[in-house]
Amino acid sequence: MSEAYELKEKIKDFLEIRDFKSLKNYLLEQNPVDIAEVMDDFGDKEFSLCFRLLPKELAAEAFVNMDSDRQKLLIDGLSDAKLKEILDEICPDDAADLVGEMPAGVVSRILKHTDPEMRDAINAILRYPKNSVGSIMTTEYVSLRRNMTVAEAIAKIRRVGVDKETVYTCYVTEQRKLVGVISVRAILVAQDDEILENLMTTECISVLTTDDREAAVEKIGKYGFLAIPVLDTEERIVGIVTVDDAMDVMETEASEDIAQMAAILPSEKPYLKTSAFRLWLSRVPWLLLLMISATLTSRIISSYETALAACAVLTAFIPMIMGTGGNAGGQASVTIIRGLSLDEIRLSDTLWVVWKELRVSLLCGLTLAPFAFLKVMYLDGLWREPDGVRISLIVSATLFLVVVAAKLVGCLLPLLVKAVRLDPAVVANPFITTVVDALALVVYFALASRLVPALAAGALPV
Amino acid sequence: MSEAYELKEKIKDFLEIRDFKSLKNYLLEQNPVDIAEVMDDFGDKEFSLCFRLLPKELAAEAFVNMDSDRQKLLIDGLSDAKLKEILDEICPDDAADLVGEMPAGVVSRILKHTDPEMRDAINAILRYPKNSVGSIMTTEYVSLRRNMTVAEAIAKIRRVGVDKETVYTCYVTEQRKLVGVISVRAILVAQDDEILENLMTTECISVLTTDDREAAVEKIGKYGFLAIPVLDTEERIVGIVTVDDAMDVMETEASEDIAQMAAILPSEKPYLKTSAFRLWLSRVPWLLLLMISATLTSRIISSYETALAACAVLTAFIPMIMGTGGNAGGQASVTIIRGLSLDEIRLSDTLWVVWKELRVSLLCGLTLAPFAFLKVMYLDGLWREPDGVRISLIVSATLFLVVVAAKLVGCLLPLLVKAVRLDPAVVANPFITTVVDALALVVYFALASRLVPALAAGALPV
Repeated sequence: MSEAYELKEKIKDFLEIRDFKSLKNYLLEQNPVDIAEVMDDFGDKEFSLCFRLLPKELAAEAFVNMDSDRQKLLIDGLSDAKLKEILDEICPDDAADLVGEMPAGVVSRILKHTDPEMRDAINAILRYPKNSVGSIMTTEYVSLRRNMTVAEAIAKIRRVGVDKETVYTCYVTEQRKLVGVISVRAILVAQDDEILENLMTTECISVLTTDDREAAVEKIGKYGFLAIPVLDTEERIVGIVTVDDAMDVMETEASEDIAQMAAILPSEKPYLKTSAFRLWLSRVPWLLLLMISATLTSRIISSYETALAACAVLTAFIPMIMGTGGNAGGQASVTIIRGLSLDEIRLSDTLWVVWKELRVSLLCGLTLAPFAFLKVMYLDGLWREPDGVRISLIVSATLFLVVVAAKLVGCLLPLLVKAVRLDPAVVANPFITTVVDALALVVYFALASRLVPALAAGALPV
Repeated sequence: MSEAYELKEKIKDFLEIRDFKSLKNYLLEQNPVDIAEVMDDFGDKEFSLCFRLLPKELAAEAFVNMDSDRQKLLIDGLSDAKLKEILDEICPDDAADLVGEMPAGVVSRILKHTDPEMRDAINAILRYPKNSVGSIMTTEYVSLRRNMTVAEAIAKIRRVGVDKETVYTCYVTEQRKLVGVISVRAILVAQDDEILENLMTTECISVLTTDDREAAVEKIGKYGFLAIPVLDTEERIVGIVTVDDAMDVMETEASEDIAQMAAILPSEKPYLKTSAFRLWLSRVPWLLLLMISATLTSRIISSYETALAACAVLTAFIPMIMGTGGNAGGQASVTIIRGLSLDEIRLSDTLWVVWKELRVSLLCGLTLAPFAFLKVMYLDGLWREPDGVRISLIVSATLFLVVVAAKLVGCLLPLLVKAVRLDPAVVANPFITTVVDALALVVYFALASRLVPALAAGALPV
């Protein structure tokens, strides 16, 4: 991006002429996210120098947006007083993220310099399992009482709003139970003497701390919320998830799904910051497993070795049949997996899905079969061979059957995996391909060994 | 979801006993998104009945969340007065979406009943190309002047805020040019007599109407904004994109990428609402194209037909080699495509990417090769064959070379496609598989025909 580039060049210029005062004023005007991004590229010395010029609020905001390596470097280099200053400025959920990523020695130094209230909040968030709502919530929010007037509510928001991650949705509580939700917009546009109880929504849409974090993201997206309240098992409000964190989770989850569909173990770091060794670790297990599982296809082909030797031309179409089957199955599975993860498809829709895929697969098969026949006959030149028509028909019929089977396997497998409460994305494309490959070969050879005279005569599988 | 289910049952109960007054009161408490979701499942008669019970704000909010079929049904059934009432309540961007989806006759009826200001706004939004920032922005936002005091700003927000899609980020303008941005939070927590100029941020991060809509989503996500200002080419503010719309776009774009990686033409409707015919249309073109492109692999195999007949066991490992190559290439391409679409990888990183993939592919190849050798020797039983060791070595060496080549092709192809300004997602997995398949066969046969004595003796390609 040119913005980050410009920022970087300007900072470098100021550093070069050692005009720290102008640099400080310049940095004051910049967005902390950009500052963090640009500083990531700096050498350690320039980096520390820049960071020390930032006022504490900006420093804290830039800090939470940095790489964990850089954060560690900073914490190691900061005085206790400065560290405390920054920790006081950051939100409990960011602090919990930080603590989650630092080595033990750094963690104890961080916890030593946070006030007891923050320490409790960090511990509360860290206690929730990874990927739960509790692990992404913040414990800071604005709570109001139901008998407050609009004027009183505005006064309270103005007083406490400085510390809260989001002030735009306020929660009306009674003995820590959530009894209503009201937006700052609704408060602002109402008359001063109106009572909150008459303005608030009492049907509160919320999530539980133990829900999957995707549940919070889904609801925020569906209802267009800026934040969603998080309740504990006794229905007391313990925090909120804000829309900016929801967007981050949405992006991460989509990346994870995409990685898993491509047979990669997901990792949270961006590609360029992941070492070749880590990338290898995330890719080689599936490659190995799928390579070993190809033993199935080798076996099937070996058992028809004599047949293939007698009619070698059959071999030429194996890649086409397996490839088309794999693609057809992949289309179905990826569609279903995405639908499941967006909650557009549920397990109760299984019959509908199968019925729909059956029709789609019949249509696809009926379209592809004649083209396959023509391709094999004329493009691959089988019209010159003695059994040409027969073999073209076999290829075409196999293709039809394989497309139908592949789409049915492709839609059923993710639903089955979902039914046993595993993640459908991990069974995606490549695994389905292995199943479909085996099916395709069995159908192909079964048809060929019955219908090609040279094979039907005697060269049946050993 | 149980919430929607509960809502549906309750509405049905009220309808059954014809207690419309209680139904109305009940609906008043519900979220319009849920109402729209539940009403989608109702019969036409119940549907119209329910809708007429909703007060206009709720009706309008439910209306924009409905299926386009249902929206059409409603518009056809509404009186002119009621239609106008609803149109007056909805935001220009939702109105533009509506107009974009309705048939011509309905559109002219809609435009007849919107006031001139709204009509201009709708037309302005519709004029922007699909997928541009202009097409997803709303033209309603709160603008303030730089010399206003905090008290004056609050008074203005309270006065005009009723009509604005988002009031939480305000834009300071001067002759329609954007000179500053200030959050309602910053205004609320400041002193009454403070001047906005001293509180606002002057480094405004913005997008242009003609930018790709992903640019707006990316910036909103990166900076954690609730809205981003949209400027025209003369730097005048013409609208904003809000975070809820950004989340929708993010989800749609991820779904599109996923579909394209699986060789599906993306469609915007959810799976269960897409007809089998439409699904066929979105899937069959790629299947057909990839089937035809498999002519390449058929040709290669055919040209080695005599060799394969002489050493039939070679055929058994074709699926494993091609499959592993396809998986290895797919891992690289999917990673790079996702990185490009998240802007984590840029074209200028090409050399870095190639260097990283080269190392990863060497690591993967070196891991897989010995396993492949052992698998072929013992799992597939080649130790019993005369040329067993030799063939196992050939398979293992081919696999190594194919994994390296596949990863390099997999990372380079998306970058190349991006360089010529096309969408990298469309060249993904299946297309790369075709290239890698051909490469794999050529390497395999080249090695085999040189190293297996029976073949090297004479059975070279025709």
